[in-house]
Amino acid sequence: MLFLKKHLMNEVKILLPESEIPTHWYNIQADMPNKPLPPLHPGTKQPVGPQDLAPLFPMELIKQEVSQEPFIEIPDEVRDIYRQWRPSPLFRARRLEKALDTPAKIYYKYEGVSPSGSHKTNTAVAQAYYNKQEGVKKITTETGAGQWGTALSIACQMFGIECDVYMVRISFNQKPYRKALMNAFGATVYSSPTNRTQAGRNILASDPDTAGSLGIAISEAIEMAVQDEHTKYALGSVLNHVLTHQTIIGQECLKQMEMAGDFPDIIIAPLGGGSNFAGISFPFVADKINGADIDIIPVEPSSCPTMTRAPFGYDHGDTAQMTPLLAMHSLGHNFVPAPIHAGGLRYHGVAPLISHVIRQKLATPRSIDQLECYAAAVQWARTEGFIPAPETSHAIAAAIQEAKKAKEEGKEKVILFNWSGHGLLDLIGYDKYFNGQLTNYSLPQEEIDAATEIMKKYPKPA
Amino acid sequence: MLFLKKHLMNEVKILLPESEIPTHWYNIQADMPNKPLPPLHPGTKQPVGPQDLAPLFPMELIKQEVSQEPFIEIPDEVRDIYRQWRPSPLFRARRLEKALDTPAKIYYKYEGVSPSGSHKTNTAVAQAYYNKQEGVKKITTETGAGQWGTALSIACQMFGIECDVYMVRISFNQKPYRKALMNAFGATVYSSPTNRTQAGRNILASDPDTAGSLGIAISEAIEMAVQDEHTKYALGSVLNHVLTHQTIIGQECLKQMEMAGDFPDIIIAPLGGGSNFAGISFPFVADKINGADIDIIPVEPSSCPTMTRAPFGYDHGDTAQMTPLLAMHSLGHNFVPAPIHAGGLRYHGVAPLISHVIRQKLATPRSIDQLECYAAAVQWARTEGFIPAPETSHAIAAAIQEAKKAKEEGKEKVILFNWSGHGLLDLIGYDKYFNGQLTNYSLPQEEIDAATEIMKKYPKPA
Repeated sequence: MLFLKKHLMNEVKILLPESEIPTHWYNIQADMPNKPLPPLHPGTKQPVGPQDLAPLFPMELIKQEVSQEPFIEIPDEVRDIYRQWRPSPLFRARRLEKALDTPAKIYYKYEGVSPSGSHKTNTAVAQAYYNKQEGVKKITTETGAGQWGTALSIACQMFGIECDVYMVRISFNQKPYRKALMNAFGATVYSSPTNRTQAGRNILASDPDTAGSLGIAISEAIEMAVQDEHTKYALGSVLNHVLTHQTIIGQECLKQMEMAGDFPDIIIAPLGGGSNFAGISFPFVADKINGADIDIIPVEPSSCPTMTRAPFGYDHGDTAQMTPLLAMHSLGHNFVPAPIHAGGLRYHGVAPLISHVIRQKLATPRSIDQLECYAAAVQWARTEGFIPAPETSHAIAAAIQEAKKAKEEGKEKVILFNWSGHGLLDLIGYDKYFNGQLTNYSLPQEEIDAATEIMKKYPKPA
Repeated sequence: MLFLKKHLMNEVKILLPESEIPTHWYNIQADMPNKPLPPLHPGTKQPVGPQDLAPLFPMELIKQEVSQEPFIEIPDEVRDIYRQWRPSPLFRARRLEKALDTPAKIYYKYEGVSPSGSHKTNTAVAQAYYNKQEGVKKITTETGAGQWGTALSIACQMFGIECDVYMVRISFNQKPYRKALMNAFGATVYSSPTNRTQAGRNILASDPDTAGSLGIAISEAIEMAVQDEHTKYALGSVLNHVLTHQTIIGQECLKQMEMAGDFPDIIIAPLGGGSNFAGISFPFVADKINGADIDIIPVEPSSCPTMTRAPFGYDHGDTAQMTPLLAMHSLGHNFVPAPIHAGGLRYHGVAPLISHVIRQKLATPRSIDQLECYAAAVQWARTEGFIPAPETSHAIAAAIQEAKKAKEEGKEKVILFNWSGHGLLDLIGYDKYFNGQLTNYSLPQEEIDAATEIMKKYPKPA
């Protein structure tokens, strides 16, 4: 190992062999000093039981949702598919460091190598596998920006499961490339709202020209899943089992940082629902619980400040109020975020596990404006060469902030961030940025107050 | 090494450390038993000398163009940038093999990991470096599909050279994403024809609504380069030095195939101008010259059958007849290929070195229809998970043909092909394919006859 370390300290890419793909996912629930609050049934207001979730998810995922085991074994079939792109490379951003003239070392975990182009594939493959094990023939889901729908499409294809994606109408029309990619991976993509569901027909009757919304698309996907015993539903973020699957990212980083001869002082990731942030940070949060001195920074858009300004309480995960009540930071289930280009960060809530981590002061959230993120993304593209997704640009902007701070303070900080996905299907945002068509959005205080009012209707967390 | 071999025989990805990036490019001219014919000055019809090319290219590249040395050292600065994505992975297509139920082993060299998404970056970085060494401030080029313009943009950015890309007007309008990517990499992109050049003004005066063409864009890029002593021009294929730079691909494959414990029986690559084909095959052609039993198969679209149907002779490399006369297979410098989606394969000629390799019977060309290529690309996406460029799909289609043949014959053939680039910016073609809007194109014999007539005007190769 010593030889490897010395050797790899000069590398740009820290690569692990396939034999080093982690054998288990890490479940942070086992190590939480205070346990997070349980989800509540929207009718009874009592904690949700496995049978409440059984129409939507296979039982193994429901078990993972409440598991208190620290490690959950990754099935061989899933690890075998992971080999197509995992372990993903850990890069040292030497060219950016030089451009910033910083004493900081900047490492990034490059999740853009997956077939779908983002970290979403990690949980998509796991979810498709467990559905297959339990005889599921079809999985329904929603997609907005398209990263999640793409990942689930290829995962279902690999296990011979049908995949129906309800894509928000405005995205469906604006992003024919995303649709074509999901078609290439064998999925059927519907422009939501459709005439296939009651939820969809209701909306179309009252507003035939609607642009659609993630809330409507979720309702349609759930409605189609519950009415057929061979069909289930899948979600790409927020839930505990989804976050757990993503910890493969951080576990690989632990090994790769050791190979590089470093340990992070600062860990950064973008945060929408929370899955990519959880993925890179949770294995390090375990160290932090045990006293390690690490700054852990989830980054959100200023226009959707769920972590830095939203209240904490019980709220629904979807606009149509079909999901259980979740204990989380939320801008209100009817909140409609500004039309920023980081579509994956336009979500009104924060995963309950991450909300809990933040409340335990194990992470320090930050919000950054859209224009600063695009400027960071362009500086990145011109130094490191890879074009980041608008979501990823939030982590890059924070990493640049920290690298500049390290320079001011003359400290050789080690920064690690999650390069969660490439931006090759998001170039329309860059085009608008270069044409001066983008602006920042600041959320008025009234919207925060409205969220507080909404959450008063639900049980108050102890 | 034995341990490595046994270990890696079960891997999906064969990875090399950065220390194994080749130190030299391989120059096939040194090993050719019969030498290819020299380019001729279009006026004097005499072999072109270095001074004829000096207004366009830095002297080091002109030297490489005629070098008879078998190996040309890769400068440290170029190898340092290569580390951002090289050595590229060699994959074993186990999932496709299983789907085809073939005894063949299918390996693919995955060039999609480069910042521009294709193999073009290999020569772009080298060319930008030599220009920088000789004090060049700006490089001009043309681009059609956009792969080459993208690669040169990021390469110039890394050496602090300005980059002006003349992009064929119809592509400029249809592919705003490609333009945005080049902008993100710092290049200035012009819709060609422009009012900046005499060539452009002439065209616009006679045909203001022209869709533009690669021929016109080349004329503009060359015109801008020759009128400024600090500006040079760069080409992404066809020329000897470009092909030589790409041999880094095949040299890595030699090592990776050894690690996998195999040696290819069949080598396949798509062919437009010829750079990606040369890149993977030339290091193996050297073995073939020495008697190795390898089938080497460049694949072209049936609609642009430069290798399988076009005459061999002297012809211009561009439509506007500004380049020297090259000894090559050509459909005539004024040939306009059908509007297939593999834009990178829509070129009227074949690189002189490759034309020579074919005439020496060291390679066996094949042409495949567009629809078979798309079908192969979709089968690929659904098994291997990565979405190929339309150009790359030609190699995939041929690999599938060979794997099926191996099954019929019951032979365990080892197939290696060049996965030259991803298709994430080419999804509009897939969308049309799924909507049944694509057709095959067969070239009428009259067009071949017309090319033969044109080439009669030029010196007949000995």
